[in-house]
Amino acid sequence: MDVLVSEVGPRDGLQSITRVMPTEAKRRWIAAEAAAGVKEIEVGSFVPASVLPQMADTAELVTYAKSIAGLTVAALVPNAKGAQAAIAVKADKISLPLSCSESHSVANLRMTHARVLEEVRTVANLIKELPAGERPSFEGSLSTAFGCTIEGPIRDADIARLAEALMEAGCDEIGLSDTTGYADPAAVKRLIGVVRNAVGEDKITGIHLHNTRGLGLANALAALDCGLTTLDASLGGLGGCPFAPGASGNIVTEDLVFMLESMGISTGIDLEQLIAARDILGDALPQEPLHGFVAHAGLPLGYHPARTSV
Amino acid sequence: MDVLVSEVGPRDGLQSITRVMPTEAKRRWIAAEAAAGVKEIEVGSFVPASVLPQMADTAELVTYAKSIAGLTVAALVPNAKGAQAAIAVKADKISLPLSCSESHSVANLRMTHARVLEEVRTVANLIKELPAGERPSFEGSLSTAFGCTIEGPIRDADIARLAEALMEAGCDEIGLSDTTGYADPAAVKRLIGVVRNAVGEDKITGIHLHNTRGLGLANALAALDCGLTTLDASLGGLGGCPFAPGASGNIVTEDLVFMLESMGISTGIDLEQLIAARDILGDALPQEPLHGFVAHAGLPLGYHPARTSV
Repeated sequence: MDVLVSEVGPRDGLQSITRVMPTEAKRRWIAAEAAAGVKEIEVGSFVPASVLPQMADTAELVTYAKSIAGLTVAALVPNAKGAQAAIAVKADKISLPLSCSESHSVANLRMTHARVLEEVRTVANLIKELPAGERPSFEGSLSTAFGCTIEGPIRDADIARLAEALMEAGCDEIGLSDTTGYADPAAVKRLIGVVRNAVGEDKITGIHLHNTRGLGLANALAALDCGLTTLDASLGGLGGCPFAPGASGNIVTEDLVFMLESMGISTGIDLEQLIAARDILGDALPQEPLHGFVAHAGLPLGYHPARTSV
Repeated sequence: MDVLVSEVGPRDGLQSITRVMPTEAKRRWIAAEAAAGVKEIEVGSFVPASVLPQMADTAELVTYAKSIAGLTVAALVPNAKGAQAAIAVKADKISLPLSCSESHSVANLRMTHARVLEEVRTVANLIKELPAGERPSFEGSLSTAFGCTIEGPIRDADIARLAEALMEAGCDEIGLSDTTGYADPAAVKRLIGVVRNAVGEDKITGIHLHNTRGLGLANALAALDCGLTTLDASLGGLGGCPFAPGASGNIVTEDLVFMLESMGISTGIDLEQLIAARDILGDALPQEPLHGFVAHAGLPLGYHPARTSV
């Protein structure tokens, strides 16, 4: 495997829609992707069920996903309380978002930057108290990094400062997140450089991209060019913008895998099995549009995955 | 202007749908794009009206478009007879496609490679007979270069051989065309290299991409990385695959312009005016779906075109 495609649909996809997917369907979804070769799945978010009813079964799903051999089970946490819950069920990876736009942070999470960083410190201390072999990896995710719908562009200097602050507060690594679908390939390359300069070359491996304005895969290509090795994506682009018909939310897992494998970059994922897993979404959420191109157009004649030849 | 975005919707977009767009609407479309700053438009194809009734007014459209100052007026021709018609109305640029897959060439154009090359030679001679200032530029377009729905992958050696043959037959330059939507970014880079090695670094400036499998803009980015400066695109991705809901045909002009300008690459095109031109398509072809993301999602807060700052 050259690139880790991290499926975030059960978290970011479902979080973006109002309907609640039954736990049993989520389990089938997770199992099907793992069986197709997906190595990391963000199964949910440890937020109060009163805020996001779709995420109420996250603990149960972490426990379930942990039973699948070889799968890295990730969860999002907005704060230390969420991290505590994630740790209790032994999530392998915890991501805590810090919105680069403080206005967005206050509006959406009701937390200033200082407050979020305080939570990060508490989470880092919780993790330190665990036995060495049981510590989840802990990512600080710079959300709205490519711009904010309230503040507009974020200054590079702010990105650098916040990346440093997250590492100082105890994160293991930094992720960049195009929450708003504002990124372009040049900005992707620039911001990866900004983060690397601020916290070190090896402290950013992943990026979280949306396809709101159609540039998702071009942005992914730019991230690959920089040597990033983890790309978040969502099966069927679940949770697309309601105002943008045809626009997926996150970049579409199956289109991303198609791009990578076509380019000779191995993902370890069986594309036909992955595409078949869309049926689980279609059955469980019949009203939700599924996005993506390759599932409709089919594979090219003579297509073969990376590391194989015909 | 750093990159020339060549609008091919009036030819490739319309050619892919069954409905005939009234000439008057086509004129408004061409005028609107030119007013938005588009510098090159392929206005039609000189094929018999019995084959493609949508293209019956191509001569009239070339004459009309030639009246717009600063606009390069391009037309596709399948053979010498078409080229004669294009020359008669003083088209600025003539493209003649050679399908790299000979099976495809025979099935779709009823011409072997040898026969197409014979036509190319005749066209080159027609052009040579014109006074120096009146000669259109003449591009040989390698269609199905990234694979064929009948033959599958095309060998690099065949691409090289056909590029050489087109230049020897009298083309001024070679274009690569992903007719089938099979391209990926690695293949784009590889084939540009193959053509450059075969016929010279400066003999390929443009590429014609489709978005059938969602990789269109990533492929465009790969072509930019190689230094190509002309990218074909179609307003609203007109003429999408009928079997792929949401899949545009050619890459979407407005999404491409958004990507380029966001990256700081100037196109000379006013994006809001370009997006407004979609209304002409919507009015004239109400049943045809319009594709693209940025027209729906809107421009990011704080967006500004290349070469301007806020």
